[in-house]
Amino acid sequence: MNNTAQLHQLNPNAIALCALGRWIASRHWVPATGGNFSIRTSDNSALVTASGKDKGELSPQDLLPVSWQDQQLSCSGTPSAETALHAMLYQLNPASKAVLHTHSVQATVFSRLISQDNYLFAGYEMQKAISGISSHQQLLSLPIFDNTQDIPALAEELKHRWQKQPLSQSLNHSLNDSFHYGLLVRSHGLYVWGNSLEQAKRHLEGWEFLINCELERFKIAGLP
Amino acid sequence: MNNTAQLHQLNPNAIALCALGRWIASRHWVPATGGNFSIRTSDNSALVTASGKDKGELSPQDLLPVSWQDQQLSCSGTPSAETALHAMLYQLNPASKAVLHTHSVQATVFSRLISQDNYLFAGYEMQKAISGISSHQQLLSLPIFDNTQDIPALAEELKHRWQKQPLSQSLNHSLNDSFHYGLLVRSHGLYVWGNSLEQAKRHLEGWEFLINCELERFKIAGLP
Amino acid sequence: MNNTAQLHQLNPNAIALCALGRWIASRHWVPATGGNFSIRTSDNSALVTASGKDKGELSPQDLLPVSWQDQQLSCSGTPSAETALHAMLYQLNPASKAVLHTHSVQATVFSRLISQDNYLFAGYEMQKAISGISSHQQLLSLPIFDNTQDIPALAEELKHRWQKQPLSQSLNHSLNDSFHYGLLVRSHGLYVWGNSLEQAKRHLEGWEFLINCELERFKIAGLP
Amino acid sequence: MNNTAQLHQLNPNAIALCALGRWIASRHWVPATGGNFSIRTSDNSALVTASGKDKGELSPQDLLPVSWQDQQLSCSGTPSAETALHAMLYQLNPASKAVLHTHSVQATVFSRLISQDNYLFAGYEMQKAISGISSHQQLLSLPIFDNTQDIPALAEELKHRWQKQPLSQSLNHSLNDSFHYGLLVRSHGLYVWGNSLEQAKRHLEGWEFLINCELERFKIAGLP
Repeated sequence: MNNTAQLHQLNPNAIALCALGRWIASRHWVPATGGNFSIRTSDNSALVTASGKDKGELSPQDLLPVSWQDQQLSCSGTPSAETALHAMLYQLNPASKAVLHTHSVQATVFSRLISQDNYLFAGYEMQKAISGISSHQQLLSLPIFDNTQDIPALAEELKHRWQKQPLSQSLNHSLNDSFHYGLLVRSHGLYVWGNSLEQAKRHLEGWEFLINCELERFKIAGLP
Repeated sequence: MNNTAQLHQLNPNAIALCALGRWIASRHWVPATGGNFSIRTSDNSALVTASGKDKGELSPQDLLPVSWQDQQLSCSGTPSAETALHAMLYQLNPASKAVLHTHSVQATVFSRLISQDNYLFAGYEMQKAISGISSHQQLLSLPIFDNTQDIPALAEELKHRWQKQPLSQSLNHSLNDSFHYGLLVRSHGLYVWGNSLEQAKRHLEGWEFLINCELERFKIAGLP
Repeated sequence: MNNTAQLHQLNPNAIALCALGRWIASRHWVPATGGNFSIRTSDNSALVTASGKDKGELSPQDLLPVSWQDQQLSCSGTPSAETALHAMLYQLNPASKAVLHTHSVQATVFSRLISQDNYLFAGYEMQKAISGISSHQQLLSLPIFDNTQDIPALAEELKHRWQKQPLSQSLNHSLNDSFHYGLLVRSHGLYVWGNSLEQAKRHLEGWEFLINCELERFKIAGLP
Repeated sequence: MNNTAQLHQLNPNAIALCALGRWIASRHWVPATGGNFSIRTSDNSALVTASGKDKGELSPQDLLPVSWQDQQLSCSGTPSAETALHAMLYQLNPASKAVLHTHSVQATVFSRLISQDNYLFAGYEMQKAISGISSHQQLLSLPIFDNTQDIPALAEELKHRWQKQPLSQSLNHSLNDSFHYGLLVRSHGLYVWGNSLEQAKRHLEGWEFLINCELERFKIAGLP
């Protein structure tokens, strides 16, 4: 174990992330070793879950230190294949401290049913679980990206859509693309982030709830 | 910590409410720090959950003492934003000892699918879980209110509808509005109450069951 | 505590029934203090759960001794309101040692969707979970009774239908009424029984599985 | 206890399989003593779960040593009725170390809704949970067999279909039958296998996820 690895095991957020992983696994949101998590350690570095581990059985040594400089990643070990997307989310969102990527049945099915690149949630009190939203009357947008095995390309597309419509503008509520601490990759899963691990967890629960509500509603009222 | 706060930590109901919160969270009925609970401490006071706490991780100091005089609330600390609704329920219902507000996917979706201000449950044995109901043949009404961020206005609307149709009359079973220890706020969640914490829990389980049954039935038989 | 009550607390089946109650509650099949259980103690007596208890929090003293002579029940204490149905099942089925009555959302909704007094399950491997069934090709019948608050009348109706079509004949597979260790009360719940507590549990899981499968199938393929 | 039985209790995989059984039972995938599991112990032998045991309560002595020579099975004790299918999967797939057979509501209902002898999954990221699949763009086939009580006949049919289309060829992605560590028996359940117990568990979670996603999608978008 190198010094960096030893140090990050003293990181209390690393221990909290492993505990959160057990809770997320208990919800069945990271089946079959799927999903990946990270916590930021500096402006240009983070700890990212190792590839292929059961996310309900993490210990701090399963979190690998990764750093980035523009689009260049460096890491010893094999972090999650989707590390480039985590790094891009940290770069686009300087205040973000944690990124959680999950594979729930609900988020996967929802993303597959919606053909647009964006879904607008309207009227749910739970929209207020997302930081910056203070009323159920504010429309809340969830961007959807097509899945690809080319993660750097997906990271670039995210950057492109983000720069067209940064978070600060989306609060003025244009009806188009905007980012609210969450995005879907179609037939794949959900990414959420937050300015603390606790906030990222709240965003995860909030987005999963909203997606689940719409899926249940579609079963009775049909697709929009 | 002031004396009042010290005292309420000795309240056995406060400890029981924290335990109930863990059970409610295990059912996924208070996701994303949503929901709020209270227990009555006198004719015009109660302990109310602090805002923004995970309701599955409460300890007695997360319950804030609140008192009311007509529509005036007083509290040290930041109790739940929906405290005024709890206070109104205690004022309208002098025998009530506990109020539980939850955000299940089922109650949220159900309230969104029903456009009337009231839903009548008929024929379920589980209707007897609600105090005062002794047969599945008694119609059981669940009032639905539109959501608003103006909680004092919602409390006033509740008072208005309650006074039109108090609980004691509803037992004579007019088919119109009436209150049976539960109400829905549309696209938001469920409020239940009871003459003890144990009864409030039974009402919560009963109403969630009935709502869930109707939702499942709608998926097969369609909306009424 | 009288001698009978003291004795039954030494009954290992009483302890096993309390443990089974915790497992059944964990499946959410006895919400809101609903449901009731019994174990036979002699040809004409049983221990029956007390009324109004949470079936996930039973201890042996919550099981009340009940005996019967023809249709006359005798008991000290307040056993479940549905004790007469338990007694009838023991009288009709001399080998039966345990009766479990549960209120799952699935069984409740299923019984409400089916208007006939009987439902035939066909082709499921899980049909073999029911004692006496050795192939998925044997049709398996689940009788459905209309709900009533008059439990003695329901017990009489059960006796009437049972005597028309006893279990031993149903194994020859007429397509009409027959009993296979389970019955539904419409909009109310499921009764199962077995020649041991373990078998009654297997019947409960088997019937709940079969009912759940058909409900899920109806959501996609429609009602039969 | 004979020497063989004593020895296999020292097998760390036997202990791991019992622990996995508890996890699988917690998912409700082996209700009513259903399902069966095995781990390979040599080229032509395995430990197979005893018939009629609750798969969430296994201990190593509930795993019975079975060996095979061509289609002849030998075993002391009563292993699962479906042992011949396990033996066939080990014979067809020399690298396989574990076989898991489960009865989830989802797999059972899915297999009943699909009338073809094969279902193609397309576009799900989770397809990569199955060993040998590296992209959501690879079609992933799940063979479906009609249920029968004649397990040796089912084993022969499996052998027949396998030899038409062995795993090594299926990686070239013809659109016809092929095997990817999983198969369904109609109205009965799912079989998965893997080159380690850990991989078999990942395949179980992956296949259950994919099946569940399609079922949820059918509820909204209809059958294909």
